[in-house]
Amino acid sequence: MRTNAARVAGRHFLQIPGPTPVPDRILRAMDMPVLDHRGPEFQRLGRRVLENIKGVFKTKNRVFIYPASGTGAWEAALANVLSPGDKVLMFETGHFATLWKNMAIKLGLEPEFIASDWRTGAEPEAIGARLREDKNHEIKAVCVVHNETSTGCVSPIAAVRKAIDDAGHPALFLVDTISSLASIDFHHDEWGVDVTVSGSQKGLMLPPGLSFNAVSDKALAASKNAKTPKLFWSWEEMIPHNDKGFFPYTPGTNLLYGLDAAIDMLNEEGLDNVFARHDRHAEATRRAVRAWGLEILCRVPEHYSSSLTAVMVPEGFNADDFRAKTLEAFDMSLGTGLTKLTGKVFRIGHLGDTNDLTILGALTGVEMGLELSGIPHRKGGVQAAMDFLVGQARNEARIAAE
Amino acid sequence: MRTNAARVAGRHFLQIPGPTPVPDRILRAMDMPVLDHRGPEFQRLGRRVLENIKGVFKTKNRVFIYPASGTGAWEAALANVLSPGDKVLMFETGHFATLWKNMAIKLGLEPEFIASDWRTGAEPEAIGARLREDKNHEIKAVCVVHNETSTGCVSPIAAVRKAIDDAGHPALFLVDTISSLASIDFHHDEWGVDVTVSGSQKGLMLPPGLSFNAVSDKALAASKNAKTPKLFWSWEEMIPHNDKGFFPYTPGTNLLYGLDAAIDMLNEEGLDNVFARHDRHAEATRRAVRAWGLEILCRVPEHYSSSLTAVMVPEGFNADDFRAKTLEAFDMSLGTGLTKLTGKVFRIGHLGDTNDLTILGALTGVEMGLELSGIPHRKGGVQAAMDFLVGQARNEARIAAE
Amino acid sequence: MRTNAARVAGRHFLQIPGPTPVPDRILRAMDMPVLDHRGPEFQRLGRRVLENIKGVFKTKNRVFIYPASGTGAWEAALANVLSPGDKVLMFETGHFATLWKNMAIKLGLEPEFIASDWRTGAEPEAIGARLREDKNHEIKAVCVVHNETSTGCVSPIAAVRKAIDDAGHPALFLVDTISSLASIDFHHDEWGVDVTVSGSQKGLMLPPGLSFNAVSDKALAASKNAKTPKLFWSWEEMIPHNDKGFFPYTPGTNLLYGLDAAIDMLNEEGLDNVFARHDRHAEATRRAVRAWGLEILCRVPEHYSSSLTAVMVPEGFNADDFRAKTLEAFDMSLGTGLTKLTGKVFRIGHLGDTNDLTILGALTGVEMGLELSGIPHRKGGVQAAMDFLVGQARNEARIAAE
Amino acid sequence: MRTNAARVAGRHFLQIPGPTPVPDRILRAMDMPVLDHRGPEFQRLGRRVLENIKGVFKTKNRVFIYPASGTGAWEAALANVLSPGDKVLMFETGHFATLWKNMAIKLGLEPEFIASDWRTGAEPEAIGARLREDKNHEIKAVCVVHNETSTGCVSPIAAVRKAIDDAGHPALFLVDTISSLASIDFHHDEWGVDVTVSGSQKGLMLPPGLSFNAVSDKALAASKNAKTPKLFWSWEEMIPHNDKGFFPYTPGTNLLYGLDAAIDMLNEEGLDNVFARHDRHAEATRRAVRAWGLEILCRVPEHYSSSLTAVMVPEGFNADDFRAKTLEAFDMSLGTGLTKLTGKVFRIGHLGDTNDLTILGALTGVEMGLELSGIPHRKGGVQAAMDFLVGQARNEARIAAE
Repeated sequence: MRTNAARVAGRHFLQIPGPTPVPDRILRAMDMPVLDHRGPEFQRLGRRVLENIKGVFKTKNRVFIYPASGTGAWEAALANVLSPGDKVLMFETGHFATLWKNMAIKLGLEPEFIASDWRTGAEPEAIGARLREDKNHEIKAVCVVHNETSTGCVSPIAAVRKAIDDAGHPALFLVDTISSLASIDFHHDEWGVDVTVSGSQKGLMLPPGLSFNAVSDKALAASKNAKTPKLFWSWEEMIPHNDKGFFPYTPGTNLLYGLDAAIDMLNEEGLDNVFARHDRHAEATRRAVRAWGLEILCRVPEHYSSSLTAVMVPEGFNADDFRAKTLEAFDMSLGTGLTKLTGKVFRIGHLGDTNDLTILGALTGVEMGLELSGIPHRKGGVQAAMDFLVGQARNEARIAAE
Repeated sequence: MRTNAARVAGRHFLQIPGPTPVPDRILRAMDMPVLDHRGPEFQRLGRRVLENIKGVFKTKNRVFIYPASGTGAWEAALANVLSPGDKVLMFETGHFATLWKNMAIKLGLEPEFIASDWRTGAEPEAIGARLREDKNHEIKAVCVVHNETSTGCVSPIAAVRKAIDDAGHPALFLVDTISSLASIDFHHDEWGVDVTVSGSQKGLMLPPGLSFNAVSDKALAASKNAKTPKLFWSWEEMIPHNDKGFFPYTPGTNLLYGLDAAIDMLNEEGLDNVFARHDRHAEATRRAVRAWGLEILCRVPEHYSSSLTAVMVPEGFNADDFRAKTLEAFDMSLGTGLTKLTGKVFRIGHLGDTNDLTILGALTGVEMGLELSGIPHRKGGVQAAMDFLVGQARNEARIAAE
Repeated sequence: MRTNAARVAGRHFLQIPGPTPVPDRILRAMDMPVLDHRGPEFQRLGRRVLENIKGVFKTKNRVFIYPASGTGAWEAALANVLSPGDKVLMFETGHFATLWKNMAIKLGLEPEFIASDWRTGAEPEAIGARLREDKNHEIKAVCVVHNETSTGCVSPIAAVRKAIDDAGHPALFLVDTISSLASIDFHHDEWGVDVTVSGSQKGLMLPPGLSFNAVSDKALAASKNAKTPKLFWSWEEMIPHNDKGFFPYTPGTNLLYGLDAAIDMLNEEGLDNVFARHDRHAEATRRAVRAWGLEILCRVPEHYSSSLTAVMVPEGFNADDFRAKTLEAFDMSLGTGLTKLTGKVFRIGHLGDTNDLTILGALTGVEMGLELSGIPHRKGGVQAAMDFLVGQARNEARIAAE
Repeated sequence: MRTNAARVAGRHFLQIPGPTPVPDRILRAMDMPVLDHRGPEFQRLGRRVLENIKGVFKTKNRVFIYPASGTGAWEAALANVLSPGDKVLMFETGHFATLWKNMAIKLGLEPEFIASDWRTGAEPEAIGARLREDKNHEIKAVCVVHNETSTGCVSPIAAVRKAIDDAGHPALFLVDTISSLASIDFHHDEWGVDVTVSGSQKGLMLPPGLSFNAVSDKALAASKNAKTPKLFWSWEEMIPHNDKGFFPYTPGTNLLYGLDAAIDMLNEEGLDNVFARHDRHAEATRRAVRAWGLEILCRVPEHYSSSLTAVMVPEGFNADDFRAKTLEAFDMSLGTGLTKLTGKVFRIGHLGDTNDLTILGALTGVEMGLELSGIPHRKGGVQAAMDFLVGQARNEARIAAE
């Protein structure tokens, strides 16, 4: 028996689809003394983050910030605009959509769940069709996951909006962007979303612990009549405090320092560049997967996720064995298959603060892990990804030189 | 116009009754890469903190850890054991007891609030009397704040327990220890508390962002039938995950690193030493207040808080003006008077990771701030505190030498 | 036997005359990945700090930065402008002047040491007199310590310059500002200093590990002919690299990040405000000492140091016993008496990143330590310091309001 | 014009042959308040690091620690055992051997330089032959670079020792291990080295700023008579202070915290595992280089370095253009060719705290950079490295399972 030095030296490769690696600049921003959350210095911070976070959601309206991880913001979204007994239409994009549906049940709502095979994003046609049937407008809200973290499929939010409008249905539109915000383009206002749910630990590059509700005027109006009991999640409690840069109870002070830094970093890079970077890494990953001869879980190319890629392992092999061997041998964490995908897929996270060489390093880990685990595959995945990325770099260099 | 250098150089004196100064060791423990919250390394951490936190609450039962600030744990306590329409008996120790009562209303409960003048802890006799009247046992829970952060009064929890028992009443006993845990002795099991609520940002010396429910078997049993809608706060969701060292949704990873370090630090110092240190600093502070000729808000010496001291300013003077001047001139934050105490008191926090010289430095800031603000007082407060502390140090030295 | 909790909780009071407490902002700036010291990003940093450090020395000429602690910069100053056998005139201000003299001997120089009682700064008259005697200009350099860290006496550098000029003597003028730079006003160019020696760990608020030589054209010219063997300390090696923002060998990368931040902080506060702050804290400290009835070592008020105050303990008492007891009881480090002052004085550092309440906290530690140690003194030192500082704060507030 | 996001997001790949990436644990250990360097807590640290560093050098004798970067320890080694006019025999392994020789000249020594083509380590035969000629023992020291950082060639130190012994020559043996210590096996005592020079910023995984002299009794004896002027570097000054855990002048306090952590980390991994890891990464790198069809600078396989690999670019191409393009496109720093190798080689550092996936990520950057720069090469370098590393991992797994 001996220890394998390769496992402990160097930096862990955290290639799960979130939490994502936190940049040093953000960790250091958080590594600072706590401020008096009722004092003037905190107030300046509070005003700044409450204002600046809007740009990330592409909204001019309010964004509420909770000192709680993302599941809390799901609950906040439902609890603020709905009442026990309300019908909601949800789309089964995968594990997380299912969890959100289960939460709705726990909160006393009556979710209707449009089934799917976990290999696409939400289908606007199906949603539109159901809404058109709902002549009495009993459905109070449509809930869709933008990027389904369990499958790597993206729902076409603008098209869902259009389907709701085309059906002439007044339902509120709630969207979960936990694993897409600041990774995949999203427009809260332009796409007519009423409540956008998000969290700190993915594209925002922070540790878990903050979550968000971006809201529309229609959502705020609906919240006046929503009867789900709540206080911690209550927007009504937040508003008068937020208006002064404060919060109704103790906020996540140090995570807010980090958020302040994260927004600066996103703006310095430019959101469009951030999205392009995610697109590039996703495409490189998919090229590797195809070169290995493995199948991408998402079966609709238009729905491919730029945050993560879920990869199917051949019948007779267990993705979790592969993940365990890869972790053991190469100190890399990959995402597991969830519930009905257990053992059948592994997920490669390529979101957050990362770059070409890190993604390629991760892909070498996958390729070697496949080899170690005896999963049938062809070599050449990393080579395919390199070929793509060097081409992209050449284009960049050409554009920069012009 | 000029800048006052004294205001920006050096270390801020954070003398509010929480959040408290976070020790470097804890901040550095948190300043580390995020782990895969479903991986084996996280699992070891999860198991360790879930086990070790029990010692701080002095319980052998479960403690639930929320990735949310303290108000969330209030909501969790109520939501897990009560149903809309349930009667709860609460005691008006001050601002925070009032907020908790208001939360109960928002959650659809029917709180009965035993009024008080905000100058004492809860009164066991009054609680016992009310319970004895409740022949039909309509009151489902008694809710008491252990250390009322707005007033600096401590409720005699063991005596309240006895009052409930003496009344032969089956109500659950819920206690808020947000500003007492790890500062003032508390015994979850021995005192028969059913749900103890707490938070990370006071005696635990962490930034805000984690909160706790320590529970009894009776509380767990009650939770099976509680009908308040919830998911994020649900103990039932937590249990199967916690049993494996995990959490049902993304936990506050980096705050858990800090919690792990904080528990180590408390154990290294020894909880009894921690309490004795808080007692000593509280007594030093009160001696200063008396020497200044000012009045301590808490009018029952047995209820004096070791976490903070609320000090009344004479009629005709505004405590917030004094606080603002002190912040401006000496870079020290003091606690404000809340709601009906606005302008009438200021609060000196002396809890968390601190020591004699820091407390004395803070008291010099108060004494000079009183002078600057023209608040009538006698000199000699700092001298009185020094006389006490040097005596304590002499005793320590004598004991150490024996 | 038991542990004394007061000793381990809270923040250590580091009241030695350097190293000084490093602000969080500087520690965090240093807590960053190492850069390629031959790459473009480092080059920008190198250029910036090499340029910006000049303002702190008040020079337009070069400042050399060594990746070595302060004693190294002493050696660099001597080795770059002198040759074995050269005579140098040094003034015995105290322990550090003596060490520098001993170094000169080790380097093969022939120091002449003007004796003194370690209770004043250097005396321009004595230096001028000696130089006038030196008709053949055998003395090649005059070496003076600006702030003698062992005694708390400041030498009048401008007056020494004038004495050299009045004597019509061509000797180089070398000044040690290790414990005065960025604490006590200093003008390298205006005062005609040829080599100013300094270090990172005092007024610059950094950990130890960087040191400096600010030079004049005359010193650079002299360096062409200096024969003391050296390479690491050689200015000649530095110049071509520094001109491009680089260094001739591996620089202290992370300390340079800290230096970059430190210069920003000094400029944000304003050097004049920094000096005024140090003056204020020194005066507060002296008032405390006088109120205690103890004697300040420095016997010439014009030579009082704003960086530290050395305090004499009465005959029959040992300052180091007092220091040990104070450290044990109150977790505060004070400076020891060095060589011939051993046991006779203790030194209170009041330089670097500090503020009124920290200084007052430190003075409470001294007053209580005197009490604990049985050193005869009157109470009231802290009170005297507070009376002074509150007056200063009132003046500040008045000026700010105008 | 646009910015290339790939350049700024994610973690920089620092693949120069030192300074190396500093692990978070070490950076955090250094990110702590400065201690009183004359107090008891520092003393415990001083004693610990002075003792524990010996194991890294594999010596039972003294190791001196300088608060200065590595070039200083070169100077210390020469200055402590030699006197102006002394002859020293040095071997021209490359740029750094040449710099050390130039330093010897500056210090007044008379180096004799055995020429070489910069493509091998030192040759014991040549050294032995020259020593045998030196009948009068005029040569006072033999100086060899263990790992020549400019070329990636390792000198056979034990064989050089044998050559000296076989020649019956009394010269001291001085070895530079700046880029080999804690990366490539080294035995100060067993190999009869008299002074081993090293630095903090390579295998020790620290930022630059500390350097070392491990010494033999023979070296200590020699130091009594060495006449090179010095104080900062003087062992004699160090000894009495080190014996108590202290230093004769202000030490690099925070770097010592880091050193303490670094030694712990090396011991936790096990030095043999550390060396095996370096060997593995070096071999993987060489396989990539060969697959690309490029030439390794080191022409003697027995002299291959496990710290770095210098790679020759074909005639007509400039290695620095390639490096600049690679830095620009992929945010990776590679080592430059020095002096006579300028433009002809680039160096890949694979030492310090790293792991398989990071090394492979770096190799993808090299392979893509070659492509971008139009340097003729074959694809498949990364694939060759992966093939090797997966085989190694399979062996590890097999051994672990047994």
